[in-house]
Amino acid sequence: MKPVKVGLFGLGTVGTGVVRIVEGHHEDLMSQVGSPITIHKILVKDRAKARSVSIDPSKLTEDPWEIVQDPEIDVIVEVMGGVEATKELILAALERGKHIVTANKDLMALHGPELLAKAQQKGCDIFYEASVAGGIPIIRTLIEGFSSDRITKIMGIVNGTTNYILTKMSQEGADYADVLKEAQELGYAEADPTSDVEGLDAARKMTILATLGFRATIDLADVDVKGISSVTQEDIRYAKRLGYEVKLLGIAERQDEYVSVSVQPTFVKTSHPIASVNGVFNAVYVHGEAVGETMFYGPGAGELPTATSIVADLVAVVKNAKLGVNGRQASISYKEKKLKSDKQIASKYFMLLHVEDRAGVLMQIAQVFADYDVSIESVMQPPTPDRKGAELIIITHEASKDSMNRVLQAFQDLSTVRTIKSLYRVEG
Amino acid sequence: MKPVKVGLFGLGTVGTGVVRIVEGHHEDLMSQVGSPITIHKILVKDRAKARSVSIDPSKLTEDPWEIVQDPEIDVIVEVMGGVEATKELILAALERGKHIVTANKDLMALHGPELLAKAQQKGCDIFYEASVAGGIPIIRTLIEGFSSDRITKIMGIVNGTTNYILTKMSQEGADYADVLKEAQELGYAEADPTSDVEGLDAARKMTILATLGFRATIDLADVDVKGISSVTQEDIRYAKRLGYEVKLLGIAERQDEYVSVSVQPTFVKTSHPIASVNGVFNAVYVHGEAVGETMFYGPGAGELPTATSIVADLVAVVKNAKLGVNGRQASISYKEKKLKSDKQIASKYFMLLHVEDRAGVLMQIAQVFADYDVSIESVMQPPTPDRKGAELIIITHEASKDSMNRVLQAFQDLSTVRTIKSLYRVEG
Repeated sequence: MKPVKVGLFGLGTVGTGVVRIVEGHHEDLMSQVGSPITIHKILVKDRAKARSVSIDPSKLTEDPWEIVQDPEIDVIVEVMGGVEATKELILAALERGKHIVTANKDLMALHGPELLAKAQQKGCDIFYEASVAGGIPIIRTLIEGFSSDRITKIMGIVNGTTNYILTKMSQEGADYADVLKEAQELGYAEADPTSDVEGLDAARKMTILATLGFRATIDLADVDVKGISSVTQEDIRYAKRLGYEVKLLGIAERQDEYVSVSVQPTFVKTSHPIASVNGVFNAVYVHGEAVGETMFYGPGAGELPTATSIVADLVAVVKNAKLGVNGRQASISYKEKKLKSDKQIASKYFMLLHVEDRAGVLMQIAQVFADYDVSIESVMQPPTPDRKGAELIIITHEASKDSMNRVLQAFQDLSTVRTIKSLYRVEG
Repeated sequence: MKPVKVGLFGLGTVGTGVVRIVEGHHEDLMSQVGSPITIHKILVKDRAKARSVSIDPSKLTEDPWEIVQDPEIDVIVEVMGGVEATKELILAALERGKHIVTANKDLMALHGPELLAKAQQKGCDIFYEASVAGGIPIIRTLIEGFSSDRITKIMGIVNGTTNYILTKMSQEGADYADVLKEAQELGYAEADPTSDVEGLDAARKMTILATLGFRATIDLADVDVKGISSVTQEDIRYAKRLGYEVKLLGIAERQDEYVSVSVQPTFVKTSHPIASVNGVFNAVYVHGEAVGETMFYGPGAGELPTATSIVADLVAVVKNAKLGVNGRQASISYKEKKLKSDKQIASKYFMLLHVEDRAGVLMQIAQVFADYDVSIESVMQPPTPDRKGAELIIITHEASKDSMNRVLQAFQDLSTVRTIKSLYRVEG
């Protein structure tokens, strides 16, 4: 019963959670893996800083190499973030035969294939369940649970900050800027919220999920990204009136061998299970050819939920070590990546136009849609009290992204269309 | 690249789905496991029967021993059902070193520990993902995804037939008997629906889930079971009026080291994520000390969803075989089972009483609750048009099952209480 020694990179929120679970569930973990698991050394920025868990100060170090080069350490748990410097440390640790458990979505989205290849070469595990959707074991589910199926669609609410903001906007009628400010005060949004609100965080997670789901290496650059900073209260009101919720959805889709991945605010029919995922919760909806519709729901972040996934990965590493099978997870990407063109990407759309209020305008607009082969499901002209032009709400049938781009271009050139106020993808 | 040879017990709905996926996804499966997977022999009741998939007739046999004793067969997929005879065949197959993938909840609920022990002894895998909640990979999730956490509660809608019936009763105002008849015509309910509607099927599945969740062997006899055959349209109307849906819930709970498992129709607050799981869909809600609230949603039955889980298990068996680690999954039950007494089982309750309509009755009733230390959250007396007595709707705060039993007993002896029309557990 030689103890398994863990080196921990980072003692912030999640790192603290890892210490709490490894220590608090010590007996349970030992029953499962047959050896005690101990946190041997912890990399921190400032050894002198006060901590909310009691830790033997001799375990703390400010030098990552003290951990990477420690021959006693079997596994490194990386919860400090960062990309390039962190990657170098992890490569050096793999080189020395250490297994890796990481929560770092940026690292895995940008350098996952390289790290996985190195791990396999060195007979090491690298697990990253906590990198997407915190406490939801979605990565295991995609790799193992659906190994027999062909996944056709993954839709994810994978960013809690934006889901919190959109939920508040929907439930309380508040404006984007006010809710963002409140989220910042509550610690649900960062001081610089760009990565969350502009969809970049969600895009990184979708890169990871799409790679696993489609068994082909998807790059971050393949993801078409739009954030929520332009979502207005007016949009949300129209959405609700028409039976939709506005959600920031990551959408990965496959038809035949062609795939597309995007992140954008989307009108989701209220009857769709993902429409009622509220607040900071995350959910991943997976559609497979054989299994049909499934959804996985849970906390997307937080100290203990994220630490749960990390320690579950740690258990998997130790079990593999007992069986002598570390580093044997075959790379999941055995398929060639083929991206859809804009002509192949199709969805329904919601459009809000501000137009001249006179006879013949609707006919002109309908003509443009017809010219580019976009079929209209419904048109609504709500009363505009001030008579400064009219508003038109159009929901299309399924249309290609290419056709919609042409329609938008044509509207730019049409003097009767004053502004394209909003354009959303529609799901469900 | 020696092919992996599968013996299939049963070629009904699910067996046909297994054949379709193994053959239809042949290339994908080979890419994942490195060997072709072939269905070598199939046990059927009648070789001459017409089939909806084309199968080489020489593969069909009516003699199970022809499969059990075939040295070429590596894995047996069991989708024929049955308990005692099936168990003997599976033990014989394990004895000969064959791995088992089964969808048989009855078998696993009744004899799981014995079969798992035999498998471990013979170095064989026995996987049973498809036995609970068809296409939802909930067994993997409980074993691996939450290995680091302490699960405190599992609530499952794990029987599609009863969820279909309750959904129809709720959405269309139809009566139990009519919806059951319709479900039978649609093939969603069996000609003899007892096992589904009386909660026995759900109880078997909860036995499996509770064993995995609590890491202690729970027996079917430990499950307190009540079905839906006494749920009335009146109950559902009251539920909706008070903000609840009636669902047949399997509930497994743990406090400290004490657990309880039950299946019963339950009032679930509409805001709870499991309340909106409708029709034949299944969902399992899992609460862990660290992870908090999670839910897993998907199809609970059907040819291809169930076959997805079976073939995913088959992939896991073959991967383990390549790594030489079959039969090494440690038994998950390392904890001693301690069942809660009725004094320790607690929940909120909904009660519908038919009482005499005269002064002092409410006081008498309130006195009974007070006598047994049950605190009342709300009382409602809806108008009763015919004046043949009054109806009282009572929702309690959390009370022990023991106290509620005493209250019920006291009401039996109270002449002013004419009938206890309904009693439901309340969740959320």
